[in-house]
Amino acid sequence: MTQNIYDNAAFFAGYSQLGRSLEGLDGAAEWPSLQAMLPPMPGLRVADLGCGFGWFCRWARGAGAASVLGLDVSENMLARARGFGDDPGISYARADLEDLRLPETEYNLIYTSLTFHYIVAFGGLLARIQQALAPRGKLVFSIEHPIYMAPSQPRFTLDAEGRRVWPIDRYLEEGPRQTDWLAKGVIKQHRTIGTTLNLLLAAGFTLDHVEEWSPTDAQIAARPALAQERDRPMFLLVAAHK
Amino acid sequence: MTQNIYDNAAFFAGYSQLGRSLEGLDGAAEWPSLQAMLPPMPGLRVADLGCGFGWFCRWARGAGAASVLGLDVSENMLARARGFGDDPGISYARADLEDLRLPETEYNLIYTSLTFHYIVAFGGLLARIQQALAPRGKLVFSIEHPIYMAPSQPRFTLDAEGRRVWPIDRYLEEGPRQTDWLAKGVIKQHRTIGTTLNLLLAAGFTLDHVEEWSPTDAQIAARPALAQERDRPMFLLVAAHK
Repeated sequence: MTQNIYDNAAFFAGYSQLGRSLEGLDGAAEWPSLQAMLPPMPGLRVADLGCGFGWFCRWARGAGAASVLGLDVSENMLARARGFGDDPGISYARADLEDLRLPETEYNLIYTSLTFHYIVAFGGLLARIQQALAPRGKLVFSIEHPIYMAPSQPRFTLDAEGRRVWPIDRYLEEGPRQTDWLAKGVIKQHRTIGTTLNLLLAAGFTLDHVEEWSPTDAQIAARPALAQERDRPMFLLVAAHK
Repeated sequence: MTQNIYDNAAFFAGYSQLGRSLEGLDGAAEWPSLQAMLPPMPGLRVADLGCGFGWFCRWARGAGAASVLGLDVSENMLARARGFGDDPGISYARADLEDLRLPETEYNLIYTSLTFHYIVAFGGLLARIQQALAPRGKLVFSIEHPIYMAPSQPRFTLDAEGRRVWPIDRYLEEGPRQTDWLAKGVIKQHRTIGTTLNLLLAAGFTLDHVEEWSPTDAQIAARPALAQERDRPMFLLVAAHK
Protein backbone atom coordinates (compact mmCIF):
# COMPACT_ATOMS: atom_id res chain seq x y z
CA MET A 1 0.00 0.00 0.00
CA THR A 2 0.96 3.65 -0.26
CA GLN A 3 3.18 5.08 2.44
CA ASN A 4 0.57 6.72 4.67
CA ILE A 5 2.65 9.64 5.85
CA TYR A 6 -0.48 11.60 6.76
CA ASP A 7 -1.01 9.35 9.77
CA ASN A 8 2.51 10.13 11.00
CA ALA A 9 1.88 12.44 13.98
CA ALA A 10 4.72 14.89 13.23
CA PHE A 11 3.82 15.10 9.54
CA PHE A 12 0.15 15.60 10.30
CA ALA A 13 0.89 18.33 12.84
CA GLY A 14 2.99 20.16 10.25
CA TYR A 15 0.51 19.58 7.45
CA SER A 16 -2.31 20.95 9.58
CA GLN A 17 -0.49 24.28 9.78
CA LEU A 18 -0.08 24.81 6.01
CA GLY A 19 -2.04 27.58 4.33
CA ARG A 20 -3.89 25.05 2.23
CA SER A 21 -4.96 23.18 5.39
CA LEU A 22 -6.00 26.20 7.43
CA GLU A 23 -7.52 28.33 4.67
CA GLY A 24 -8.63 25.56 2.30
CA LEU A 25 -8.72 26.16 -1.43
CA ASP A 26 -8.02 29.89 -1.05
CA GLY A 27 -4.75 28.96 0.64
CA ALA A 28 -3.58 27.05 -2.45
CA ALA A 29 -2.08 29.39 -5.03
CA GLU A 30 -2.75 26.95 -7.89
CA TRP A 31 -6.47 26.59 -7.10
CA PRO A 32 -7.73 29.34 -9.48
CA SER A 33 -5.97 27.58 -12.38
CA LEU A 34 -7.33 24.19 -11.38
CA GLN A 35 -10.81 25.60 -10.86
CA ALA A 36 -10.77 27.03 -14.40
CA MET A 37 -10.29 23.49 -15.72
CA LEU A 38 -13.39 22.11 -13.99
CA PRO A 39 -16.74 21.59 -15.73
CA PRO A 40 -19.87 23.42 -14.47
CA MET A 41 -20.69 21.63 -11.23
CA PRO A 42 -24.53 21.69 -10.93
CA GLY A 43 -25.93 18.18 -10.82
CA LEU A 44 -22.60 16.36 -11.14
CA ARG A 45 -21.67 13.17 -9.33
CA VAL A 46 -18.15 13.80 -8.07
CA ALA A 47 -15.36 11.83 -6.40
CA ASP A 48 -12.30 13.41 -4.78
CA LEU A 49 -9.38 10.99 -4.44
CA GLY A 50 -7.15 12.04 -1.57
CA CYS A 51 -9.70 14.48 -0.16
CA GLY A 52 -7.69 15.54 2.89
CA PHE A 53 -9.73 17.89 5.07
CA GLY A 54 -12.56 17.86 2.52
CA TRP A 55 -12.17 21.44 1.31
CA PHE A 56 -12.83 20.51 -2.31
CA CYS A 57 -15.76 18.24 -1.40
CA ARG A 58 -17.49 21.09 0.41
CA TRP A 59 -16.67 23.54 -2.39
CA ALA A 60 -18.10 21.14 -5.01
CA ARG A 61 -21.33 20.74 -3.06
CA GLY A 62 -21.57 24.50 -2.61
CA ALA A 63 -21.11 24.89 -6.38
CA GLY A 64 -24.07 22.57 -7.02
CA ALA A 65 -22.69 19.01 -7.25
CA ALA A 66 -25.43 16.43 -6.66
CA SER A 67 -23.15 14.17 -4.64
CA VAL A 68 -19.53 14.10 -3.60
CA LEU A 69 -17.52 11.13 -2.40
CA GLY A 70 -14.30 12.02 -0.57
CA LEU A 71 -11.74 9.22 -0.24
CA ASP A 72 -8.51 9.31 1.71
CA VAL A 73 -5.99 6.81 3.05
CA SER A 74 -5.59 8.78 6.28
CA GLU A 75 -7.96 8.40 9.21
CA ASN A 76 -6.57 11.69 10.57
CA MET A 77 -7.65 13.47 7.42
CA LEU A 78 -11.08 11.88 7.32
CA ALA A 79 -11.75 12.70 10.99
CA ARG A 80 -10.90 16.34 10.30
CA ALA A 81 -13.08 16.38 7.17
CA ARG A 82 -16.05 14.89 9.03
CA GLY A 83 -15.54 17.45 11.78
CA PHE A 84 -16.72 20.21 9.46
CA GLY A 85 -20.28 18.94 9.84
CA ASP A 86 -22.80 16.72 8.09
CA ASP A 87 -24.02 17.22 4.54
CA PRO A 88 -26.22 14.42 3.16
CA GLY A 89 -24.64 15.05 -0.27
CA ILE A 90 -21.08 14.39 0.95
CA SER A 91 -19.76 11.04 2.10
CA TYR A 92 -16.26 10.21 3.24
CA ALA A 93 -14.58 6.82 3.23
CA ARG A 94 -11.13 5.37 3.76
CA ALA A 95 -9.45 3.98 0.66
CA ASP A 96 -5.94 3.18 -0.51
CA LEU A 97 -5.72 4.40 -4.10
CA GLU A 98 -3.21 1.63 -4.93
CA ASP A 99 -6.09 -0.84 -4.92
CA LEU A 100 -9.09 1.45 -5.31
CA ARG A 101 -12.40 -0.07 -6.31
CA LEU A 102 -15.15 2.26 -7.57
CA PRO A 103 -18.52 1.54 -9.20
CA GLU A 104 -18.43 1.60 -13.02
CA THR A 105 -19.64 4.57 -15.11
CA GLU A 106 -20.73 6.37 -11.96
CA TYR A 107 -18.94 9.74 -11.81
CA ASN A 108 -19.11 12.82 -14.00
CA LEU A 109 -15.98 14.25 -12.43
CA ILE A 110 -13.07 12.67 -10.62
CA TYR A 111 -10.79 15.21 -8.99
CA THR A 112 -7.54 14.70 -7.21
CA SER A 113 -5.11 17.27 -5.86
CA LEU A 114 -1.44 16.49 -5.12
CA THR A 115 -2.10 12.80 -4.58
CA PHE A 116 -1.13 10.88 -7.74
CA HIS A 117 2.58 11.46 -7.13
CA TYR A 118 2.38 9.08 -4.15
CA ILE A 119 0.98 6.24 -6.28
CA VAL A 120 3.24 3.42 -7.44
CA ALA A 121 0.75 1.50 -9.65
CA PHE A 122 -0.40 4.62 -11.48
CA GLY A 123 -1.40 3.00 -14.79
CA GLY A 124 -3.72 0.57 -13.01
CA LEU A 125 -5.32 3.38 -11.00
CA LEU A 126 -5.96 5.39 -14.19
CA ALA A 127 -7.63 2.37 -15.82
CA ARG A 128 -9.96 2.02 -12.81
CA ILE A 129 -10.71 5.75 -12.82
CA GLN A 130 -11.55 5.54 -16.50
CA GLN A 131 -14.01 2.71 -15.81
CA ALA A 132 -15.56 4.65 -12.94
CA LEU A 133 -16.28 7.69 -15.12
CA ALA A 134 -19.60 8.13 -16.89
CA PRO A 135 -19.41 8.69 -20.68
CA ARG A 136 -17.58 12.01 -21.32
CA GLY A 137 -16.76 12.16 -17.61
CA LYS A 138 -13.76 14.29 -16.67
CA LEU A 139 -10.59 13.70 -14.71
CA VAL A 140 -8.95 16.88 -13.37
CA PHE A 141 -5.82 16.60 -11.25
CA SER A 142 -2.70 18.26 -9.95
CA ILE A 143 0.62 16.67 -9.09
CA GLU A 144 3.93 17.96 -7.94
CA HIS A 145 5.77 18.92 -11.14
CA PRO A 146 8.51 16.45 -12.14
CA ILE A 147 11.02 19.31 -12.44
CA TYR A 148 10.31 19.99 -8.77
CA MET A 149 10.52 16.34 -7.77
CA ALA A 150 13.39 15.00 -9.87
CA PRO A 151 16.54 16.48 -8.29
CA SER A 152 18.83 14.78 -5.78
CA GLN A 153 18.67 18.07 -3.86
CA PRO A 154 15.26 19.59 -4.54
CA ARG A 155 15.94 23.13 -3.38
CA PHE A 156 17.28 26.33 -4.94
CA THR A 157 21.05 26.69 -4.96
CA LEU A 158 23.56 29.23 -6.26
CA ASP A 159 25.58 28.63 -9.41
CA ALA A 160 29.21 29.69 -9.85
CA GLU A 161 28.14 33.27 -10.69
CA GLY A 162 25.87 33.49 -7.66
CA ARG A 163 22.65 33.12 -9.65
CA ARG A 164 19.79 31.31 -7.91
CA VAL A 165 19.01 28.16 -9.90
CA TRP A 166 17.02 24.98 -9.48
CA PRO A 167 19.50 22.12 -9.84
CA ILE A 168 18.05 19.47 -12.11
CA ASP A 169 19.57 16.04 -12.27
CA ARG A 170 18.25 12.48 -12.94
CA TYR A 171 15.08 13.91 -14.51
CA LEU A 172 14.79 10.91 -16.83
CA GLU A 173 15.40 8.37 -14.06
CA GLU A 174 11.89 7.61 -12.90
CA GLY A 175 11.03 6.02 -9.59
CA PRO A 176 10.89 6.85 -5.88
CA ARG A 177 12.19 10.13 -4.49
CA GLN A 178 12.66 10.42 -0.75
CA THR A 179 12.56 13.86 0.84
CA ASP A 180 12.27 15.35 4.28
CA TRP A 181 9.15 17.51 4.10
CA LEU A 182 7.32 17.98 7.42
CA ALA A 183 8.69 14.55 8.38
CA LYS A 184 11.73 12.49 7.46
CA GLY A 185 11.56 10.00 4.61
CA VAL A 186 8.47 11.08 2.68
CA ILE A 187 8.39 8.93 -0.48
CA LYS A 188 7.01 10.24 -3.76
CA GLN A 189 7.04 8.68 -7.23
CA HIS A 190 8.85 10.64 -9.93
CA ARG A 191 7.50 10.31 -13.46
CA THR A 192 8.20 12.55 -16.44
CA ILE A 193 5.36 14.59 -17.93
CA GLY A 194 5.58 12.33 -20.99
CA THR A 195 5.04 9.20 -18.90
CA THR A 196 2.10 10.71 -17.01
CA LEU A 197 0.40 11.79 -20.25
CA ASN A 198 1.11 8.53 -22.07
CA LEU A 199 -0.36 6.53 -19.17
CA LEU A 200 -3.51 8.66 -19.44
CA LEU A 201 -3.67 8.02 -23.21
CA ALA A 202 -3.04 4.29 -22.69
CA ALA A 203 -5.94 4.21 -20.19
CA GLY A 204 -8.23 5.61 -22.90
CA PHE A 205 -8.34 9.26 -21.89
CA THR A 206 -8.42 12.18 -24.31
CA LEU A 207 -6.27 15.09 -23.12
CA ASP A 208 -7.96 18.49 -22.78
CA HIS A 209 -5.46 20.74 -21.01
CA VAL A 210 -1.93 20.52 -19.60
CA GLU A 211 -0.66 23.35 -17.45
CA GLU A 212 2.64 23.94 -15.74
CA TRP A 213 1.40 26.25 -13.06
CA SER A 214 2.77 29.77 -12.80
CA PRO A 215 1.76 32.44 -10.33
CA THR A 216 0.01 35.37 -11.99
CA ASP A 217 1.34 38.92 -11.85
CA ALA A 218 -1.45 39.75 -9.39
CA GLN A 219 -0.50 36.85 -7.12
CA ILE A 220 3.15 37.94 -7.11
CA ALA A 221 2.14 41.54 -6.36
CA ALA A 222 0.14 40.31 -3.37
CA ARG A 223 2.81 37.82 -2.24
CA PRO A 224 6.27 38.72 -3.65
CA ALA A 225 7.84 35.44 -2.44
CA LEU A 226 5.86 33.69 -5.19
CA ALA A 227 8.13 35.27 -7.85
CA GLN A 228 10.66 32.46 -7.50
CA GLU A 229 7.98 29.98 -8.55
CA ARG A 230 8.50 31.29 -12.10
CA ASP A 231 12.04 29.91 -12.13
CA ARG A 232 10.78 26.32 -12.02
CA PRO A 233 7.25 24.93 -11.98
CA MET A 234 5.97 23.50 -8.73
CA PHE A 235 2.70 21.96 -9.98
CA LEU A 236 1.47 20.15 -13.08
CA LEU A 237 -2.27 20.45 -13.74
CA VAL A 238 -4.07 18.16 -16.19
CA ALA A 239 -7.64 17.84 -17.51
CA ALA A 240 -8.73 14.84 -19.56
CA HIS A 241 -11.98 13.13 -20.44
CA LYS A 242 -13.31 9.63 -21.13
CA MET B 1 10.29 36.23 -40.76
CA THR B 2 12.25 33.67 -38.80
CA GLN B 3 15.90 34.35 -38.10
CA ASN B 4 17.54 32.34 -40.89
CA ILE B 5 20.68 31.30 -39.08
CA TYR B 6 21.22 28.42 -41.48
CA ASP B 7 22.27 30.85 -44.19
CA ASN B 8 24.92 32.32 -41.85
CA ALA B 9 28.19 30.97 -43.30
CA ALA B 10 29.84 30.16 -39.96
CA PHE B 11 26.71 28.48 -38.61
CA PHE B 12 26.21 26.46 -41.76
CA ALA B 13 29.84 25.33 -41.78
CA GLY B 14 29.48 24.12 -38.18
CA TYR B 15 26.08 22.56 -38.77
CA SER B 16 27.41 20.66 -41.77
CA GLN B 17 29.90 18.88 -39.49
CA LEU B 18 27.34 17.59 -36.96
CA GLY B 19 26.72 13.85 -36.80
CA ARG B 20 23.11 14.41 -37.83
CA SER B 21 24.27 16.31 -40.92
CA LEU B 22 27.00 13.90 -42.01
CA GLU B 23 25.32 10.61 -41.08
CA GLY B 24 21.68 11.64 -41.45
CA LEU B 25 19.01 10.05 -39.32
CA ASP B 26 21.41 7.46 -37.88
CA GLY B 27 23.48 10.33 -36.50
CA ALA B 28 20.51 11.59 -34.45
CA ALA B 29 20.19 9.68 -31.19
CA GLU B 30 16.48 10.52 -30.85
CA TRP B 31 15.56 9.21 -34.31
CA PRO B 32 14.61 5.64 -33.22
CA SER B 33 12.09 7.12 -30.75
CA LEU B 34 10.69 9.51 -33.35
CA GLN B 35 10.53 6.78 -35.97
CA ALA B 36 8.49 4.60 -33.59
CA MET B 37 5.85 7.38 -33.51
CA LEU B 38 5.39 7.45 -37.30
CA PRO B 39 2.54 5.72 -39.15
CA PRO B 40 3.31 3.02 -41.76
CA MET B 41 4.67 5.01 -44.69
CA PRO B 42 3.56 3.15 -47.84
CA GLY B 43 1.36 5.35 -50.02
CA LEU B 44 1.43 8.41 -47.74
CA ARG B 45 1.60 12.00 -48.93
CA VAL B 46 4.20 13.59 -46.65
CA ALA B 47 5.54 17.07 -45.94
CA ASP B 48 8.72 17.75 -43.96
CA LEU B 49 8.85 21.29 -42.54
CA GLY B 50 12.44 22.35 -42.04
CA CYS B 51 13.83 19.50 -44.13
CA GLY B 52 17.50 20.50 -43.89
CA PHE B 53 19.63 18.20 -46.01
CA GLY B 54 16.59 16.07 -46.86
CA TRP B 55 17.55 12.99 -44.87
CA PHE B 56 14.00 12.39 -43.68
CA CYS B 57 12.52 13.06 -47.15
CA ARG B 58 14.73 10.37 -48.66
CA TRP B 59 14.05 7.99 -45.79
CA ALA B 60 10.27 8.49 -46.17
CA ARG B 61 10.42 7.76 -49.89
CA GLY B 62 12.57 4.70 -49.26
CA ALA B 63 9.96 3.52 -46.72
CA GLY B 64 7.23 3.78 -49.37
CA ALA B 65 5.77 7.30 -49.17
CA ALA B 66 3.95 8.22 -52.40
CA SER B 67 5.26 11.78 -52.36
CA VAL B 68 7.37 13.94 -50.09
CA LEU B 69 7.57 17.72 -50.02
CA GLY B 70 10.61 19.11 -48.22
CA LEU B 71 10.42 22.77 -47.19
CA ASP B 72 13.18 24.85 -45.68
CA VAL B 73 13.90 28.54 -45.15
CA SER B 74 17.57 28.06 -46.03
CA GLU B 75 18.83 28.02 -49.61
CA ASN B 76 22.04 26.41 -48.31
CA MET B 77 20.06 23.53 -46.93
CA LEU B 78 17.93 23.08 -50.04
CA ALA B 79 20.98 23.13 -52.32
CA ARG B 80 22.56 20.39 -50.23
CA ALA B 81 19.33 18.36 -50.23
CA ARG B 82 18.96 18.63 -54.02
CA GLY B 83 22.59 17.58 -54.39
CA PHE B 84 21.69 14.07 -53.24
CA GLY B 85 20.07 13.43 -56.62
CA ASP B 86 16.68 13.52 -58.28
CA ASP B 87 13.68 11.48 -57.16
CA PRO B 88 10.41 12.28 -58.95
CA GLY B 89 8.59 11.57 -55.66
CA ILE B 90 10.52 14.23 -53.71
CA SER B 91 10.25 17.96 -54.26
CA TYR B 92 12.01 20.70 -52.35
CA ALA B 93 10.94 24.32 -52.00
CA ARG B 94 11.89 27.35 -50.00
CA ALA B 95 9.37 28.46 -47.37
CA ASP B 96 9.33 30.52 -44.20
CA LEU B 97 7.17 28.60 -41.73
CA GLU B 98 6.07 31.88 -40.10
CA ASP B 99 3.76 32.46 -43.07
CA LEU B 100 3.53 28.99 -44.55
CA ARG B 101 0.80 28.28 -47.07
CA LEU B 102 -0.06 24.67 -47.88
CA PRO B 103 -2.93 23.11 -49.85
CA GLU B 104 -5.88 22.03 -47.70
CA THR B 105 -6.50 18.39 -46.64
CA GLU B 106 -3.51 17.26 -48.70
CA TYR B 107 -1.06 15.45 -46.41
CA ASN B 108 -1.30 12.21 -44.46
CA LEU B 109 1.78 13.05 -42.43
CA ILE B 110 3.48 16.31 -41.58
CA TYR B 111 6.84 15.82 -39.95
CA THR B 112 9.18 18.38 -38.50
CA SER B 113 12.40 17.86 -36.58
CA LEU B 114 13.93 20.54 -34.33
CA THR B 115 12.28 23.41 -36.22
CA PHE B 116 9.21 24.54 -34.27
CA HIS B 117 11.33 26.10 -31.52
CA TYR B 118 12.42 28.79 -33.97
CA ILE B 119 8.82 29.81 -34.73
CA VAL B 120 7.31 32.91 -33.13
CA ALA B 121 3.72 32.60 -34.44
CA PHE B 122 3.41 28.96 -33.44
CA GLY B 123 -0.37 28.84 -32.90
CA GLY B 124 -1.02 30.18 -36.39
CA LEU B 125 1.36 27.67 -37.94
CA LEU B 126 -0.38 24.79 -36.12
CA ALA B 127 -3.75 25.95 -37.43
CA ARG B 128 -2.42 25.94 -41.01
CA ILE B 129 -0.84 22.52 -40.51
CA GLN B 130 -4.16 21.23 -39.22
CA GLN B 131 -5.92 22.52 -42.37
CA ALA B 132 -3.25 20.96 -44.58
CA LEU B 133 -3.72 17.50 -43.09
CA ALA B 134 -6.11 14.98 -44.62
CA PRO B 135 -8.72 13.54 -42.24
CA ARG B 136 -6.92 11.53 -39.50
CA GLY B 137 -3.62 12.89 -40.83
CA LYS B 138 -0.74 12.90 -38.36
CA LEU B 139 1.67 15.53 -37.11
CA VAL B 140 4.90 14.12 -35.64
CA PHE B 141 7.57 16.52 -34.41
CA SER B 142 10.56 17.08 -32.18
CA ILE B 143 11.66 20.29 -30.50
CA GLU B 144 14.41 21.22 -28.14
CA HIS B 145 13.04 20.42 -24.68
CA PRO B 146 12.02 23.52 -22.68
CA ILE B 147 14.12 22.34 -19.72
CA TYR B 148 17.07 22.47 -22.08
CA MET B 149 16.14 25.85 -23.51
CA ALA B 150 14.86 27.79 -20.50
CA PRO B 151 18.00 28.59 -18.46
CA SER B 152 19.94 31.83 -18.51
CA GLN B 153 23.05 29.62 -18.73
CA PRO B 154 22.02 26.46 -20.61
CA ARG B 155 24.94 24.23 -19.68
CA PHE B 156 25.80 21.85 -16.86
CA THR B 157 27.33 23.43 -13.79
CA LEU B 158 28.49 22.22 -10.38
CA ASP B 159 26.45 22.81 -7.25
CA ALA B 160 27.95 23.63 -3.84
CA GLU B 161 28.68 19.94 -3.20
CA GLY B 162 30.35 19.49 -6.58
CA ARG B 163 27.43 17.63 -8.12
CA ARG B 164 26.85 18.17 -11.85
CA VAL B 165 23.43 19.79 -12.28
CA TRP B 166 21.44 21.53 -14.99
CA PRO B 167 20.65 25.01 -13.65
CA ILE B 168 17.02 25.78 -14.33
CA ASP B 169 15.74 29.31 -14.03
CA ARG B 170 12.96 31.38 -15.70
CA TYR B 171 11.28 28.19 -16.94
CA LEU B 172 7.85 29.84 -16.77
CA GLU B 173 9.01 33.01 -18.53
CA GLU B 174 8.25 32.22 -22.15
CA GLY B 175 9.76 34.04 -25.09
CA PRO B 176 13.04 34.34 -26.97
CA ARG B 177 16.24 32.71 -25.79
CA GLN B 178 19.51 33.77 -27.38
CA THR B 179 22.43 31.36 -27.33
CA ASP B 180 25.78 30.97 -29.01
CA TRP B 181 25.60 27.59 -30.73
CA LEU B 182 27.76 27.25 -33.84
CA ALA B 183 27.32 31.02 -34.28
CA LYS B 184 26.66 33.95 -31.98
CA GLY B 185 23.13 35.09 -31.29
CA VAL B 186 21.01 32.12 -32.34
CA ILE B 187 17.43 32.93 -31.31
CA LYS B 188 14.99 30.24 -30.21
CA GLN B 189 11.50 30.55 -28.76
CA HIS B 190 10.99 29.08 -25.29
CA ARG B 191 7.55 27.67 -24.52
CA THR B 192 6.56 25.33 -21.70
CA ILE B 193 5.38 21.81 -22.53
CA GLY B 194 1.94 22.90 -21.34
CA THR B 195 1.82 25.79 -23.80
CA THR B 196 2.99 23.63 -26.71
CA LEU B 197 0.36 20.98 -25.97
CA ASN B 198 -2.43 23.48 -25.35
CA LEU B 199 -1.69 25.22 -28.67
CA LEU B 200 -2.00 21.82 -30.39
CA LEU B 201 -5.33 21.20 -28.64
CA ALA B 202 -6.55 24.71 -29.51
CA ALA B 203 -5.69 24.05 -33.18
CA GLY B 204 -7.96 20.98 -33.09
CA PHE B 205 -5.38 18.22 -32.69
CA THR B 206 -5.86 15.10 -30.60
CA LEU B 207 -2.69 14.13 -28.71
CA ASP B 208 -1.36 10.60 -29.26
CA HIS B 209 2.07 10.52 -27.61
CA VAL B 210 4.35 12.85 -25.67
CA GLU B 211 7.92 11.76 -25.02
CA GLU B 212 10.76 13.43 -23.20
CA TRP B 213 13.56 11.69 -24.97
CA SER B 214 16.02 9.57 -23.01
CA PRO B 215 18.94 7.58 -24.40
CA THR B 216 18.44 3.83 -24.03
CA ASP B 217 20.81 1.62 -22.04
CA ALA B 218 22.13 0.25 -25.34
CA GLN B 219 22.82 3.75 -26.67
CA ILE B 220 24.70 4.67 -23.48
CA ALA B 221 26.72 1.44 -23.63
CA ALA B 222 27.74 2.32 -27.21
CA ARG B 223 28.37 6.00 -26.42
CA PRO B 224 28.96 6.58 -22.68
CA ALA B 225 28.87 10.38 -23.03
CA LEU B 226 25.11 10.05 -23.61
CA ALA B 227 24.61 9.14 -19.92
CA GLN B 228 24.42 12.80 -18.92
CA GLU B 229 21.39 13.20 -21.17
CA ARG B 230 19.43 11.37 -18.45
CA ASP B 231 20.01 14.26 -16.06
CA ARG B 232 17.85 16.59 -18.12
CA PRO B 233 15.89 15.99 -21.33
CA MET B 234 17.27 17.46 -24.54
CA PHE B 235 14.34 16.72 -26.85
CA LEU B 236 10.56 16.71 -26.64
CA LEU B 237 8.82 14.41 -29.15
CA VAL B 238 5.09 14.69 -29.88
CA ALA B 239 2.60 12.80 -32.06
CA ALA B 240 -0.91 14.13 -32.67
CA HIS B 241 -3.64 13.66 -35.25
CA LYS B 242 -6.38 15.65 -36.92
